[in-house]
Parts: sequence; structure tokens; C-alpha cells
Amino acid sequence: MNALDETHNPALRSWVASANDPASEFPIQNLPFGRFRRAGTDEPWRIGVAIGDQVLDLRQASEHGAMPALPQPLAQGDLNAFMAQGSAARIALRRALSQALREGSAAQSALQPCLVPQAQAEMTLPCRVGDYTDFYTGIHHATAVGKLFRPEQPLLPNYKYVPIGYHGRSSSLRVSGHAFARPLGQFKTDAAEPQFGPCRRLDYELELGAFIGAGNEFGAPIPMARAEDHLFGMVLLNDWSARDVQAWEYQPLGPFLAKNFATTLSPWVVTMEALAPFRCAFVRPDGDPPPLHYLDSADNREQGSLDITLEVWLQTAAMRDRGEPALRLMQSNFRDAYWTLAQLVAHHSSNGCNLQAGDLLGSGTQSGPLEGQGGSLLELTQGGKQAITLPNGETRTFLHDGDTVILRGHCERAGRRRIGFGDCAASVQAAREPVVNPVAPSRS
Amino acid sequence: MNALDETHNPALRSWVASANDPASEFPIQNLPFGRFRRAGTDEPWRIGVAIGDQVLDLRQASEHGAMPALPQPLAQGDLNAFMAQGSAARIALRRALSQALREGSAAQSALQPCLVPQAQAEMTLPCRVGDYTDFYTGIHHATAVGKLFRPEQPLLPNYKYVPIGYHGRSSSLRVSGHAFARPLGQFKTDAAEPQFGPCRRLDYELELGAFIGAGNEFGAPIPMARAEDHLFGMVLLNDWSARDVQAWEYQPLGPFLAKNFATTLSPWVVTMEALAPFRCAFVRPDGDPPPLHYLDSADNREQGSLDITLEVWLQTAAMRDRGEPALRLMQSNFRDAYWTLAQLVAHHSSNGCNLQAGDLLGSGTQSGPLEGQGGSLLELTQGGKQAITLPNGETRTFLHDGDTVILRGHCERAGRRRIGFGDCAASVQAAREPVVNPVAPSRS
Repeated sequence: MNALDETHNPALRSWVASANDPASEFPIQNLPFGRFRRAGTDEPWRIGVAIGDQVLDLRQASEHGAMPALPQPLAQGDLNAFMAQGSAARIALRRALSQALREGSAAQSALQPCLVPQAQAEMTLPCRVGDYTDFYTGIHHATAVGKLFRPEQPLLPNYKYVPIGYHGRSSSLRVSGHAFARPLGQFKTDAAEPQFGPCRRLDYELELGAFIGAGNEFGAPIPMARAEDHLFGMVLLNDWSARDVQAWEYQPLGPFLAKNFATTLSPWVVTMEALAPFRCAFVRPDGDPPPLHYLDSADNREQGSLDITLEVWLQTAAMRDRGEPALRLMQSNFRDAYWTLAQLVAHHSSNGCNLQAGDLLGSGTQSGPLEGQGGSLLELTQGGKQAITLPNGETRTFLHDGDTVILRGHCERAGRRRIGFGDCAASVQAAREPVVNPVAPSRS
Repeated sequence: MNALDETHNPALRSWVASANDPASEFPIQNLPFGRFRRAGTDEPWRIGVAIGDQVLDLRQASEHGAMPALPQPLAQGDLNAFMAQGSAARIALRRALSQALREGSAAQSALQPCLVPQAQAEMTLPCRVGDYTDFYTGIHHATAVGKLFRPEQPLLPNYKYVPIGYHGRSSSLRVSGHAFARPLGQFKTDAAEPQFGPCRRLDYELELGAFIGAGNEFGAPIPMARAEDHLFGMVLLNDWSARDVQAWEYQPLGPFLAKNFATTLSPWVVTMEALAPFRCAFVRPDGDPPPLHYLDSADNREQGSLDITLEVWLQTAAMRDRGEPALRLMQSNFRDAYWTLAQLVAHHSSNGCNLQAGDLLGSGTQSGPLEGQGGSLLELTQGGKQAITLPNGETRTFLHDGDTVILRGHCERAGRRRIGFGDCAASVQAAREPVVNPVAPSRS
């Protein structure tokens, strides 16, 4: 927000040389939080800050007395407790980290031994997620998917008034790098009875996730004017989806087993302060209704949106075998979302629902307005009807076993240092054999 | 299951005299778990077992050495860790408790000081709920509600194949006795634009909740043959619902703010062992499709259902003022559910979704097959079109401020000691004033 904030000075360089590489996603202007341990050890998980190709180990920094002002929860590996302290504590720590990591800092010699190469770090989820809510802010996604199901009414009448959302599954959230097996599920074909077996239409969804910082009390809504203050930071989120299961199960209560087998998050939480220079106006298309009172504020109109470029990359097993790099399938921007994060927070709590530190809000699939900007294969292949052809001749309607999907995101703006999110990647493994019951049931 | 199990002997009496009162819901054959502290103190929450009108304080029993074989998590107040130990640990403890609390037990003098009158106990949620899933097993509810929305097709084609469920909100689960304010929300009237304000169609839903004991690994489904083993016990659950908000928001992703403002649980978790004598056959109506293979087992067909009588009681503010007792609005039975708990566990994990100790599965509204057996006001009043008249002349279509709704449940069977769940009660308070933004937004 503050163009004069020294932590955003694009000329600021770090004594961690790799952070000054223009290609690095983690310059000193980013400083995202993650939870890690040295790979191959079973040491306790600790909070780290990404800087260049290194991680600053906050536990070690605390033990060495190298970061005197470090909040206790961070030294103890508990990001949730730090999140709960709210934005003031986070902003103060950001300043301290920025000063300690910049070129010429007196803290360099004390902090140098607290660096761990990211290549040697094993990441885990950054925090405990009490509740995970997935929203549906991508109007181009909602319209494209709606067209497949309801050509006469792609967008439902509530869409432009209600930030549509639903509760997701916390237990199956996994950090980038964790493969998962193709889910089994129930789906309907042309046969009279539904079938149970490996999903045939496995898809990804390109999303962002926002973590809640300070929560609100049960029964006490968060007004728009204070909504931003309850946000901690953001990650990339892949909302893997079994389309055949989804189509059969989702009426009338929404998606369930089609989504809850796995959701992948990028490991580094990019704070709202790091994202601040990339804020932009929240603009509704001409003729659209303005948000209802409880979802509107001047601040939100002026700078409620975020300019974050998002991408989906695919590497098939064949590409991996031949040493071919991943291929970019599409690009979109979070700026095009129909609702802002502040609106999601205000809406979610408007009925008194209490949000807690570490709760996760998914953005919904971020598709762009143009052809080829679909944030899922469902959109890119017109519901599986038009396969896409890869440069090596392979085709895809939905995901094959062995496919790796990588989400990427970055922010750039003239006069600003570019920052990134780090990869959100996972591979699809073959389905497990269905478990057979010891006693075979009768089937009429 | 085992008729010879001594813990179910109906002649068994406790040295806690109130437990032998035939009207007590907590005889020695029940022994449910809860979490409590002495009211008016801020002592740590502790695990207790209800016996008659008393609570046996397991922390104190451990400190006094009065329960030598007590699992450590229970002494420490952590029901989740005990749940995770699975059914064998629970069964062993049940036997030990049954022996220690029965008439003539040598443990009486040591345990006597560890009793706290229930009237002096403040209850809280029995455990941390990581994920809460609400199912839709009440076919009479699904049909009645479906009729209101789709007279031509009350039950959707998937209902008899898929145990329909969706994810609910964990953070706003509250134990019986916690009042909540009427939620604010967005709803549609005859006006062109939706409105935001206090809910006008506030309702309850009569449900049971089942807690998961031992969990399953990510990616490893639980087969029907082992599903029962992953259940810990049951409570009553009131899935409060804002019907006007629900009608406007629920397409296409299901209920969200219409449900997540509050969900009330009864405080005592009745274990699967206490419920065992009330198991009964799982029977599908003639002509209905049999469950798919992964949702079927001989054991489930023989004794997968549970005979639990369920009731809704209402006390209005006027009734309370005049000293009138609560009035029973309806009665139904969990035996009529279309899916068993084992099927819910097998289905939920069939795609690899990992269930964790303390996760909660709601049964969905348990309406009976007969007129007047609707488990919600939506059903009893035909969608709010036919008010019900109370004996004192008051009428209700939906809930008024000051109304207290009480869910009750019990199991009885010839030759068995009756057991109960304890009340699941909460009162509706007036809505809070909507929060006004500091800067009034423009409205075109």
C-alpha cells in the first residue's frame, strides 16, 4: 500500500546473493513463511523464511540469539499462534527481517549459519488448517462450466450478489510435491446403474489460497472496513477434481468426494505486505449490480484486487522420460476475480461464523476472459469433447497417470521487484486396487 | 453385539445410586464420555464419564490412583488421542469402568471423591473436531424437502446410490447450552435485488453425529468390513439452518452460510459399545437397488442400523415465562435412515480421503415416514405455509427469538436397560445489529 515502505524498495539487495538474481521468486521484497526441516532428518518442523535459494531457519536464529525480537511462536515452530497475533506483529517482523537480511546488515554473521539451502529442505503445510473454505470467485470459470451444464443460463442468478463458497476438506490438504493416487469413486455412464472404480475424468483447478491471520469471535461479523486486517498471506492451491464423480454426486449438496481426496498447496505463504505493491482497483463490468452494502467499501473499490499472474504447467510421464521440460498450458490473472479477498472475509463472517488463525480460503478456479485461459482441463477441452494436443504429439482431455501438474504465480509491476510463489506441484499415481470385502455381497 | 457382555447385563447396578433410577439416561450400561470442568472455575478441561446424575472425573481418578489402568490421554483431558487408540482400548476401559462403578466394587471408596454432580459441571465440546461432514441419510427428509422444491422429482436419481454428504464448519460447533444470535444473511424476496438482514426463516434439524475413533491413512480407503471399527460413539446434533439464506445461496455448490453460524452437539459421547444392544438389520424397501459392492457387507445387512428414538422439543419464551415445560414436537427413529454409519465411513474414505480421530459425521435430518414426523420446521409447516399451533395458542412457521429447541434421544429394547443421550439444547437470541461500514458506500 505504502509506496515509500522501505521493505518494498526495488533497489534493496540482500547479503544472500541468490536473492538478488532477477529470476529469483524470493528476493528480500518477498520474505514468505513456510514450515520445514532438513530433508532426511526427523528434527522438529520449524518456521522458515525463504530468501533467494535459501531458507532462514527461525528456530535456529532464535536459539543462536541472532533474531532477538523474534515472536516466541515462530521460534517454537507454531505459525498458527503467530498468525493469530494479527497484522501488527507480522509487519514488525517483516521490517526486522528486511533489515537483518539486507546488504550491509550487522546481523549477517549471526544469521549466515541459520541458512538452509531450499534444495535440502523438506517442506510441510505451513500451519494447521482448522477449516478450509473454497470460494468460486472466477466468473469466467463459473460461466464456462455453467455453459457446459446449462447452456441457456450459464451464470446462476445469485452469482453477482453472493460470493459463492462451500466448505472443503482440511485433512487431505498436502504441500507441493506429495503425489496421490487417482481416486476411486462412483459415477454414472450410459448403463442403468452407476459404477464404482477409478476416476476417468481427473482434473486440476488453478486457485489461490488465502490464510486467515487474527480470527473473529463466534457471533461477531468482520465488517469490510476491517476485513483486510484478518488476512495473513497467500499460497497457490490446486483443487484436484474428479469430474465424473462430481457430476453424479453434487446434487443437491455440492461437491464432496470429487474434491476431498487431495488438495495441494504451495509451501511458502506470501504475506499481504509482500503483495501490497500489486494491489489494484476492484472494478465491476458496466451494468453489473454493485456489491450489497455489507460487501462494499471505498478501500475495496480502490485497491481490493490483486494483480497476480497465474499459470498451469504440465509434464507428462513421457515428457519426463525424454527429459522434456514442463509445458505451460495457460495463464490468467487474479485481478479478474469477481470478488476480492476482503469481500470473502466479510461475507464468510457476516452470519457470525468465526474464522480462526490458519483457516484457508480458496479463491475458486481462476480462468481468464479469453479463449485458452481456462483454469482446468474441463474448460480447455470443452468438457472433454476437444482434446488438447501437446507439442510431442500426446493428447489430453483429462489427466493421465504419471502426469505432473505445476501451478505457478508471480507479481510484477513497473518499478517493482518481481516476486513469486514457488511451485505448487503434484503427480497423479495409478489408482489403488479397490478393496474387496471379505464376504462378497449378493447383487440382484 | 454380544448379548452375554457383562457390561450390558440389565441387572447390573451401580453404587452411584442415581444411576439405578430407571429414568436416568446414564445407567452403568451407558458410560458416555464428555469434557468438563467444575462450573465457575477456570481449571483445565478434563474428561469425565456420566454416571446417573454425576460425572466421574477421570483426571482426578488418575491423580488419586483410583483408576490404575486409565489411558494417559484421558488423564490429560485429551479425548482425541484416546479416540485414535481405536476400539480395543475403548472396550478395555469400558470393562474397567463398569467393574469399578458397579455395586460392591472395591474401587468405590477411592472413586467416590472423584464424582462431580452434573449440575455443577460446565461442559465443552468432547474433542477437537478436525473435519465435520454432514450426510443426508434421512430419506423421508430428503423426499419431503425435495417435494417443496421439485414436486415432479422429489428424490434425485443419485440418492439411492450415493450416501450424499458435504463438508460442514468445525469452528462454529458448540456444546448444548450455548445460545446464538439469529444470523444475518442475504436472501431473495419478491424485490428485484436480494436483501441482507436478519434471517426470517430460522430452523433446526434433528440429527445424530458420529465421532471417528481410529483414522485411516491418506489414500487408504476403509472397507465395509472394517468400517465399524473406526467409529467411536455418537451424540445428538442440531444443524441450525437459515432457510431463506439457503434457498438463495445453495446453487451450485451447496449450503454454506445458511448452516455454518452454529451447530449444537449434546455433551456426552455414547460409545458404539453402549449402543451395541440396539443394533438392528439394515433393510432397503422392496424394489430399491441394493447398495453397490463397496457399500455392502453381510454384517451391515444383519446389524448395520441402530434403533435410536429421536425427539424435538420446543420451549418458547412465553412458555418459559409462564413456567410451562417444553413441548414435544415430533419423534422419529434412526433405524429409518437410508444409509448406515458403516456405509458413511466406507463411502467417505472410498476415494482415499483420510478420516482422523475426532472427525464428526452428521447423519442428516432424521424425519420419520409418517405425517408429523418431520425433523425440521420446514417439513412440519410445509415450507412455512402451514403454521403449527402450540397448546398455549402460539403459532410457529419458523423459530422466534427466545425459542429454545431441545433434541433428545434414547434407546430401549425389551430386556435391556434404557440409555439416553442427554439434552442437546440451545436458544435463539435476537440478531445483532448489522455492522455499518465507516464509509457508507454508494448504491446506484
